Amino acid sequence: MYSKDKFKLGSERSAIRELFEYGKRQARIVGAENVFDFSLGNPSVPAPKKVNATIKKLLKKYSSTELHGYTSAQGSIELRTAISNDLNSRFDANSTPDEFYISCGAAAALCSVFGALRTSSKTEIIAFAPYFPEYKVFVEGSGAKFKTCELDEKDFQFNFEALEKLINENTAGVIVNSPNNPSGVVYSKESLEKLSAFLEKKSKEFGHPIYIISDEPYRELVYDNIEVPFVPSIYANTIVCYSYSKSLSLPGERIGYVYVPGVCEDSKEIYAAVAGSARSLGYVCAPSLLQRVVTECVSEKPDLSVYDKNRRLLYEGLSQMGYSCVHPDGAFYLLVKSPKGDGNEFSNIAKEKNILVVSGESFGCKDYVRISYCVDTKVIQRALPYFKELIK
Amino acid sequence: MYSKDKFKLGSERSAIRELFEYGKRQARIVGAENVFDFSLGNPSVPAPKKVNATIKKLLKKYSSTELHGYTSAQGSIELRTAISNDLNSRFDANSTPDEFYISCGAAAALCSVFGALRTSSKTEIIAFAPYFPEYKVFVEGSGAKFKTCELDEKDFQFNFEALEKLINENTAGVIVNSPNNPSGVVYSKESLEKLSAFLEKKSKEFGHPIYIISDEPYRELVYDNIEVPFVPSIYANTIVCYSYSKSLSLPGERIGYVYVPGVCEDSKEIYAAVAGSARSLGYVCAPSLLQRVVTECVSEKPDLSVYDKNRRLLYEGLSQMGYSCVHPDGAFYLLVKSPKGDGNEFSNIAKEKNILVVSGESFGCKDYVRISYCVDTKVIQRALPYFKELIK
Repeated sequence: MYSKDKFKLGSERSAIRELFEYGKRQARIVGAENVFDFSLGNPSVPAPKKVNATIKKLLKKYSSTELHGYTSAQGSIELRTAISNDLNSRFDANSTPDEFYISCGAAAALCSVFGALRTSSKTEIIAFAPYFPEYKVFVEGSGAKFKTCELDEKDFQFNFEALEKLINENTAGVIVNSPNNPSGVVYSKESLEKLSAFLEKKSKEFGHPIYIISDEPYRELVYDNIEVPFVPSIYANTIVCYSYSKSLSLPGERIGYVYVPGVCEDSKEIYAAVAGSARSLGYVCAPSLLQRVVTECVSEKPDLSVYDKNRRLLYEGLSQMGYSCVHPDGAFYLLVKSPKGDGNEFSNIAKEKNILVVSGESFGCKDYVRISYCVDTKVIQRALPYFKELIK
Repeated sequence: MYSKDKFKLGSERSAIRELFEYGKRQARIVGAENVFDFSLGNPSVPAPKKVNATIKKLLKKYSSTELHGYTSAQGSIELRTAISNDLNSRFDANSTPDEFYISCGAAAALCSVFGALRTSSKTEIIAFAPYFPEYKVFVEGSGAKFKTCELDEKDFQFNFEALEKLINENTAGVIVNSPNNPSGVVYSKESLEKLSAFLEKKSKEFGHPIYIISDEPYRELVYDNIEVPFVPSIYANTIVCYSYSKSLSLPGERIGYVYVPGVCEDSKEIYAAVAGSARSLGYVCAPSLLQRVVTECVSEKPDLSVYDKNRRLLYEGLSQMGYSCVHPDGAFYLLVKSPKGDGNEFSNIAKEKNILVVSGESFGCKDYVRISYCVDTKVIQRALPYFKELIK
């Protein structure tokens, strides 16, 4: 008398977590300095100094009940105003505070949105390969169907030929994740405009809006001054899911938001459905102290210099050795084609040299491995010779 | 193309929230000092001093990535060990850290447990009236059916006659909430033993365990040295849901746990299913800074003197006026029978005098109103004369 599906989800670790736990065990055997763990996307850069300074300030300024009490379910008006102002100044978003629903991180935001868009067991949500594997868990958790759109290996943008075959009257939304985990690719303005035109046509054809769910935890993590297009200004029916996990290096604190722009079709209804969905998932409010912290730190930017250094070192180093790498413009992942043609095989062989890279299989790109370079630069420097041995 | 059910949940406020928002509007018209708001269960007692002292200490002691980084999904081993030790020393629980799953508060804990126990759309969960209204939202959110067991007005313990008619082969669990919201009643050892024997018999009859889901956010809030029986030591197939919202006055911080005792049937499988359920609801980990805080404050007790004073003032005051009140041994709620025989009507008449008490209707006791006495004592003192007018 327990759910077999939930049991399976809880007892099988993701490929990423599995490898990470293996690394911890192996470190006890061969020494931590001899394990090169590129498995997890756990920020290695500290939170901006202002974060902890703000916590100290708040402890003095507010009473315990003000600081640790319930906020309204949608989040404090101060935080929603701060986020709205920030987006308006950077992207001409024209947003209002009431279009934001503060969530316990991006995962909670995504689950709430999928729950809001799911109208029957036929409802489908599409993700473009390569994609974050937990999308499948979250979409199926909402009772909708998860469909994946085949990889376009040419440039890692959208595969419209595959999308055309996949989309149908049950499609409620497509997930766009830019900068992308695991490829580090930023979807171009041209790609997004093409997607926008395509979805507008299909929305008309099927007689209902097909939403873009824009999952943007890496929005602030880009290099070489690359511009990340603001999706709602290209496609009106966009629902944004955001997290401060990466941009403020606060992954454990669980704070992010859902943004339902006013120009979205049925925006007020969608917003209420997101709130209702969050309520039925047990989200009472996002952590209250952190809501106040983020209110003051909403415009803080992460120090990207270490990630950028790692990125160059790894991309240039591996490319010179003969590896075929996807050029990353954002996030902190490098996607590398397996010289063996199979990501699982390469991941296993690398593991023998204590190099932990995740097979692309669960990301929808099985010929690749993902290298998370949010690590100490020395780890990369010391791992490079082993990568050279591996390609031989 | 949005979920009508979720829209309804998100756009209709609960009766409690509705009244609370009315109070805020009314305060702007007649002045805050003239509104007597007994609607919300928001602790008015500050968190123990050690909470904020611990936050300050942790900011010095740990690096940003240690403090704000992901913990494992089940929660840090340090916190799980601290909780296990605390329960073992107080209740001979004989627990191990791996039996605890740290959650974002009791709501998340409950949702994860309902998801774990739900095996088909026929699955049923029973709550005893009076009950916390959100149970319905959480149970139905998991896809199970919510059934309510009629009130026993005699002593507000369990109504076995009604339970006998309600329980069937689809019953996966019954919710026990002690001290109870909204009645403040503590279920006696005798009642729990009788329930245990009843459920054991029914489990045998139906060929599968029927779990008690013991929702215990008020476990530490009891008066007159009343003992709250530890449910797992009376009925083996108990799953505990706990929250630090009330016991440490941290309702906005969202931290609690699920405890699946090892003696529970299929305990390892249930635990994994709870973890899988939480994963599919988007819970990545409980807030990391607060996990460390609670680790150090796990044995801190709330200052109950104010609540106790309020309780006596209200219970004795109203009883003397002729109101029929349920004697509260715990929590911070007083259930009062409507002199008009209908809770909605009394709530509305009281509202005209700016006294905000919630109708018992959504709690499954429609002839009553709930008074939350987690307020400033002065509010009660000044409201008493109006209560006297009301009963006339």
